[in-house]
Amino acid sequence: MPLDPKRTVQELKHLRHLTGDDSGAQRVAFTDPWLVARAFLKQRLDELPVEQHMDPAGNYWATLKGESERELLIGGHLDSVPNGGWLDGCLNVLAGLEVLRRLNEQYAGKPPVTVRLVDWADEEGARFGRSLYGSSAASGYFDPEQMAKLQDRDGVTLSEALAHVGVRLEDAPQAKAELKHAAAYLELHIEQGPVLEGLGLPLGAVLGTVGVERHTITFHGQAAHSGSTPMNVRKDALLAAGKLSAEIYTIAERHGGVCTIGSVKTLPGIVTSVVETCELTLDQRHLNAEALAAMWQDAQDAANRFAEEGGCTASFGDIWNIEPILFHPELIEAAEASITELTPQSWRLPSGPLHDAAEVARAGVPTEMLFVQSLRGISHNKIEDTLKEHIELSVQALDKLTDRAMAWIQGQNVN
Amino acid sequence: MPLDPKRTVQELKHLRHLTGDDSGAQRVAFTDPWLVARAFLKQRLDELPVEQHMDPAGNYWATLKGESERELLIGGHLDSVPNGGWLDGCLNVLAGLEVLRRLNEQYAGKPPVTVRLVDWADEEGARFGRSLYGSSAASGYFDPEQMAKLQDRDGVTLSEALAHVGVRLEDAPQAKAELKHAAAYLELHIEQGPVLEGLGLPLGAVLGTVGVERHTITFHGQAAHSGSTPMNVRKDALLAAGKLSAEIYTIAERHGGVCTIGSVKTLPGIVTSVVETCELTLDQRHLNAEALAAMWQDAQDAANRFAEEGGCTASFGDIWNIEPILFHPELIEAAEASITELTPQSWRLPSGPLHDAAEVARAGVPTEMLFVQSLRGISHNKIEDTLKEHIELSVQALDKLTDRAMAWIQGQNVN
Repeated sequence: MPLDPKRTVQELKHLRHLTGDDSGAQRVAFTDPWLVARAFLKQRLDELPVEQHMDPAGNYWATLKGESERELLIGGHLDSVPNGGWLDGCLNVLAGLEVLRRLNEQYAGKPPVTVRLVDWADEEGARFGRSLYGSSAASGYFDPEQMAKLQDRDGVTLSEALAHVGVRLEDAPQAKAELKHAAAYLELHIEQGPVLEGLGLPLGAVLGTVGVERHTITFHGQAAHSGSTPMNVRKDALLAAGKLSAEIYTIAERHGGVCTIGSVKTLPGIVTSVVETCELTLDQRHLNAEALAAMWQDAQDAANRFAEEGGCTASFGDIWNIEPILFHPELIEAAEASITELTPQSWRLPSGPLHDAAEVARAGVPTEMLFVQSLRGISHNKIEDTLKEHIELSVQALDKLTDRAMAWIQGQNVN
Repeated sequence: MPLDPKRTVQELKHLRHLTGDDSGAQRVAFTDPWLVARAFLKQRLDELPVEQHMDPAGNYWATLKGESERELLIGGHLDSVPNGGWLDGCLNVLAGLEVLRRLNEQYAGKPPVTVRLVDWADEEGARFGRSLYGSSAASGYFDPEQMAKLQDRDGVTLSEALAHVGVRLEDAPQAKAELKHAAAYLELHIEQGPVLEGLGLPLGAVLGTVGVERHTITFHGQAAHSGSTPMNVRKDALLAAGKLSAEIYTIAERHGGVCTIGSVKTLPGIVTSVVETCELTLDQRHLNAEALAAMWQDAQDAANRFAEEGGCTASFGDIWNIEPILFHPELIEAAEASITELTPQSWRLPSGPLHDAAEVARAGVPTEMLFVQSLRGISHNKIEDTLKEHIELSVQALDKLTDRAMAWIQGQNVN
């Protein structure tokens, strides 16, 4: 079969019908709708001469054996957040399926290199709060003891949820063997942001996933009666926080990253008292590790300065951090070449959200992602959408990038 | 007995011992500790030739009948917040008791005008959330039907609590008769703020109680992923709120009032999302009604401007408001004259917190309050304190002001 991107759109709609409801996609990992989605995938893979198996972590692999045992991996995830969108994760898988079909026909079941499609398990982490479960098992950045502690809101452990789908948590690290022959990894994904839409471009080549510094900042002032305390003697923890909420825009601009204060809590938090304690969360992201560190340092310096100006103090806590993970420069070039074959212009951009590709990249596999435009930048929501012609273009781009990546694996010039 | 301010300090300590614990004063209105405090007062009033009764609202009155039936009232409240301070409210009552003793001796039981001491019931409103219960019953700003709906956190109604102390809520408005012959009202109170301490002055003459405008301001932006949304396309509700948290200092300075943002709530309030909705409370106070209205207008204008700058909108809600209540200019002068007899300098200041004096004033009775310095400006807390020499000075000042107020009632020049 020649590549048929319209079929991908049809299959996405079909999958939405099978596994969604009026509130959106319901393919939460390890649940029955997710198993339905996997069965939907298997049914289609069964039409191809591919070897299929679930690995010890629960990732699902389909292998089209090639001339070389060196492997090109194409990945995605069928799982969604609750009330999710129709594209996030499954576009990647179904586009990869379409590419497999084309390769199978073109090379009569035996392409020059081995090509494998993987459906990663529980990319979203929506139920147990830990994203990239399956790909981190394969990358080795995975601690089964930590994972064994995870529970969903009903007290069901991750181990119990895995048992429901035939996986033993303690065996999950064995999934690492799946990457043994991996020579490159490709992933197509909706952007989940407004950049490409803002530029009027359908497709972009992803530079990597940004590093994240996630911290709490707490300002400590003094409670005081709102009626009897003159403005000039107040130690108003909120005033310092308010100044920081504007300053993060300056810091982000200075370094070219993003900074977000997502949550603010005020204590005592009553209408008749100056705020004594103001705790906020700060999320900072940058593709460059040094710039990321500088952003966090600037935020601390600014917080200390604003605290001092208002007779307060500031303290800092860690929530989470991850270093930037850069994709492979030659595959980025290959992605751009593939995009510009189809559209007048490509765009290089970092990925703000994490993806399974980041785990594969940090396992040492040369990696690249393609982004396709998201409408309104909205994801993780039933109104998540992408123009059909852009979905079709993205399947074509992944297909062209697959050819370039295979050639690159074979050591040929790809641009 | 001549005036003995040291006795007032001793009685305050005695009352603290009887009705407080390690956490502070526990004289919450209508509870047993409050009844103990009232019995403590009655025991001392029984030594004087005063008529005593509880009025239909539960306020307790002691009347030293004078030559004229025109009355000078001296008021305070024995009730406290839970875990309160040792001075808030009861200094006023016990200082008034000491003044009664002096008048009784000096005038052999019959001063030139009738002098009455009143212990207002439930000034704090700590249990039922409605302050100035007793004085508002006397002033007539009291709706028994609204009051009947009040419950404490255990579901006990105000009516039930009043029945415990022999008061029928429906009879409370009859307390208005108590003000029939009132010609002036005086109240001594700790400042509960840092102004006098900051000036190094023990005593101040109070201009009135400030008006209050209390509102919610809600900024409406758009939730967006903290990783994938560039800074320049965000509609960050927190950014607008942060700007306002600084702007209220400018607004307060421009008009000479106070503005407080006491509480901020962020939605969705998660670390990975730009804030979609930010709701805050704004409390503004000023002694001048026009300036107060201008401050609230300025706050709305600023909120709308900051919202617009960031692609957000602002909406506004009412919580509560009260107009400024001014004390009597001639009694303010009398208070200053009394203070400067005792100390080198007086200071005129508004009261940020409300007091029973505000209710009496809006019932049309010429009113004045004296403030005595609070240490660290802290009240409603067991560490509330005032220097003993300042407590003694304040009793003397109330005593001197009593003489001036009696003379003023008799139509004499008082300054």
